[in-house]
Amino acid sequence: MNRDIIQPRTLRGFADLLPSVGLYRRTMLRVIEDTFTSYGFDPIQTPAIEYLEILKGKGGEESDKQMFEFEDRGGRRVGLRYDLTVPLARFVAEHQSSLTFPFRAYNIGYVWRGDRPQRGRFREFLQCDADIIGDSGVSADAEIVSIAESVLSRIDVGPFVVRINNRHVLNGLLADLHLDDRIIPVLRALDKIEKIGEEGVTAELREVGVPDAAVERVLALIACRGETNEDTIAAVSQLIPPQGEAATGLAEVRQTLELAGGRGSIRFDPSIVRGLDYYTGMVYEIQLLDAPEVGSVGGGGRYDNLTGLYQRNSLSGVGGTIGISRIIAAIEGTDRFPEVSRERPLIVVTSGAAPTEDARLAALIRGMGEFDVDLYPAQAKHSVQMKYADVRRARFVVTRDPGDAVSIKDMSSGDRISCRLDDLADTLQKLS
Amino acid sequence: MNRDIIQPRTLRGFADLLPSVGLYRRTMLRVIEDTFTSYGFDPIQTPAIEYLEILKGKGGEESDKQMFEFEDRGGRRVGLRYDLTVPLARFVAEHQSSLTFPFRAYNIGYVWRGDRPQRGRFREFLQCDADIIGDSGVSADAEIVSIAESVLSRIDVGPFVVRINNRHVLNGLLADLHLDDRIIPVLRALDKIEKIGEEGVTAELREVGVPDAAVERVLALIACRGETNEDTIAAVSQLIPPQGEAATGLAEVRQTLELAGGRGSIRFDPSIVRGLDYYTGMVYEIQLLDAPEVGSVGGGGRYDNLTGLYQRNSLSGVGGTIGISRIIAAIEGTDRFPEVSRERPLIVVTSGAAPTEDARLAALIRGMGEFDVDLYPAQAKHSVQMKYADVRRARFVVTRDPGDAVSIKDMSSGDRISCRLDDLADTLQKLS
Repeated sequence: MNRDIIQPRTLRGFADLLPSVGLYRRTMLRVIEDTFTSYGFDPIQTPAIEYLEILKGKGGEESDKQMFEFEDRGGRRVGLRYDLTVPLARFVAEHQSSLTFPFRAYNIGYVWRGDRPQRGRFREFLQCDADIIGDSGVSADAEIVSIAESVLSRIDVGPFVVRINNRHVLNGLLADLHLDDRIIPVLRALDKIEKIGEEGVTAELREVGVPDAAVERVLALIACRGETNEDTIAAVSQLIPPQGEAATGLAEVRQTLELAGGRGSIRFDPSIVRGLDYYTGMVYEIQLLDAPEVGSVGGGGRYDNLTGLYQRNSLSGVGGTIGISRIIAAIEGTDRFPEVSRERPLIVVTSGAAPTEDARLAALIRGMGEFDVDLYPAQAKHSVQMKYADVRRARFVVTRDPGDAVSIKDMSSGDRISCRLDDLADTLQKLS
Repeated sequence: MNRDIIQPRTLRGFADLLPSVGLYRRTMLRVIEDTFTSYGFDPIQTPAIEYLEILKGKGGEESDKQMFEFEDRGGRRVGLRYDLTVPLARFVAEHQSSLTFPFRAYNIGYVWRGDRPQRGRFREFLQCDADIIGDSGVSADAEIVSIAESVLSRIDVGPFVVRINNRHVLNGLLADLHLDDRIIPVLRALDKIEKIGEEGVTAELREVGVPDAAVERVLALIACRGETNEDTIAAVSQLIPPQGEAATGLAEVRQTLELAGGRGSIRFDPSIVRGLDYYTGMVYEIQLLDAPEVGSVGGGGRYDNLTGLYQRNSLSGVGGTIGISRIIAAIEGTDRFPEVSRERPLIVVTSGAAPTEDARLAALIRGMGEFDVDLYPAQAKHSVQMKYADVRRARFVVTRDPGDAVSIKDMSSGDRISCRLDDLADTLQKLS
């Protein structure tokens, strides 16, 4: 045809998922869904696009700035969701009368952020959230942390740590320092510590009016780290007022750790604050120890006032996300990335005597329910078809021969076997 | 707090998925994914947002008009994907060197259309596509039709019909009538026959310059319907030229039917044309016979020239979609909609002696791997917790008693049993 070719390309920060990664992601998603389900969470879904007023001004300046927003054809200001938590708060307020509380729901969906793309950081990525709404107890916090720990234990991602904290600890200290009105800017500065270091944070804290003595106390708090969680708790307790909000927060940390159980991978870390404004209590982040450069691969926390933006009677919530796109970015290209992630062995049916017979043969093997069957649909040379089966990492190649016969090639041993069509199921079962 | 409440609402045509429907959809999605996999299709994914030039001008005027488009912060004209087929063509052109052909891929993702919302018709909906790229044979057409038939057979949606046709039949007739240059407007008019009836179509055909005699022949063709597929084929063969494109198309229809197998639910229907410009050969649509008002719940066809828009060497493709959002709209509110769609029975652990013991109990039962366990995380009255378990349709309620004991309530029989913690697993297995 006599026309221009449109350059096939994706937007920066938006990625295609190729089959090898697609298979791996599917396996991971099933583990995540099964874990959520085993904790009694039911799936829900909210739209990708919402009225802008629903989304904006909830997470903070940074998230507002990164939001994809536009005017739809009806002249409405709309946005693509920046996270799944804000839409969940809207969802709960809208459907409250038809939900059962405490409401346990999970939601797997894409979110969009106009962030600067880098390794593991995309403008479109998949989040897997689990939340409990309508229960303000510590055991709900612990359930959320425990889910994160369970998911990460069940997928082969190497060593990881779930670092938990509680905003009340810092808030209480700031109250003691008469800096109650600086909480949000202080949190924002502290959230950057891994990016800009202690010096950068110090400069930013001074900028928002935190006196030097207070900067010192805040930095001492977030630098606290003991051998064991008990050590860290003991060290922190020396740095905060013995009564009041900070002490309550610290007690909650201890209870959360106790209730969540976990095999040493859940750690109290006073430097974890989370960048989003809506968190009010427990907060946590997940890091992969072998891939620190991709940043946190999940996190969450408690938000007491979020549903209250959309309804008079606010319901406390707690939840977290598994950042599957980042986990994949961390694993891809390492030894941990599986060569093939199929649940069942693949059989390629190559062209035999007649297309109708080939189609019947494929249907027959599919009917066994034990194999995935790829019918090579073209009349290509046999060698081309065998090459295809090889690249696809087929377990067997099956071909219909004239008469009543079928030939099977075992792709791992290289053996060729011939059998009658009636015996095919038995033969395949014996071979595999 | 002294502030305005933001009205919790979703945009028109955008729907939340509540837990009961979420559970049902999850079950359906697994059947769809497992069916795609059993046909040897691997999962891929493309971004929701693409450069507008990638998306526009492929499906036709109607789809261009309904596309969500905007300018991103970088000043790029972008759009939300209207379907999954056009992005797939771009994907194949972009990644051709790393793919294996014939390329079999499935893709489950949302699409966005600024359509007029009505029952089963949303502005955001989930599509489940399976495609074969790089094979122009009839057996690939048949695989796609066969997948659709398999999926619909495996989910309880009642009687359905997969209506297939081939655009070459009509194209050949139009060529014979010297109307080769009117193909697209004629197809567009015919695609509306269920909406505007024969009279409406006649008027529209006249408007685009089709002479009355030709209108008659076109309408006679699409009205053809026999008792059996063979009857329809025989009737159509009377109305088309005995040689040339139409006859080839009819032969392809016969072969597709033969290869796809199917148990009487695959029917040749010359009125099926599909609304999208890019189809070139076989086309099909799926209807639920008990819910004709939701329209087609899936469909697809062959597209010979689509990847050629993005690369010099065009690859023929064939594929189809399962419209899961429409299927749910058709089933919801009928007897077919399952009360609960859980894979495993739910156990609610209610508050016992101490939160730590409750958490351990929940972890213990989760560890069995046979139940979903919902830990009631608040210190609410026992009656409130039992009510919760009832509404959640729990199979058992398990409570930690003082000492070493656990009490179990069987929610179907109403029986209460007490046992030692060590015997819990055995006791639950015996009861269920």
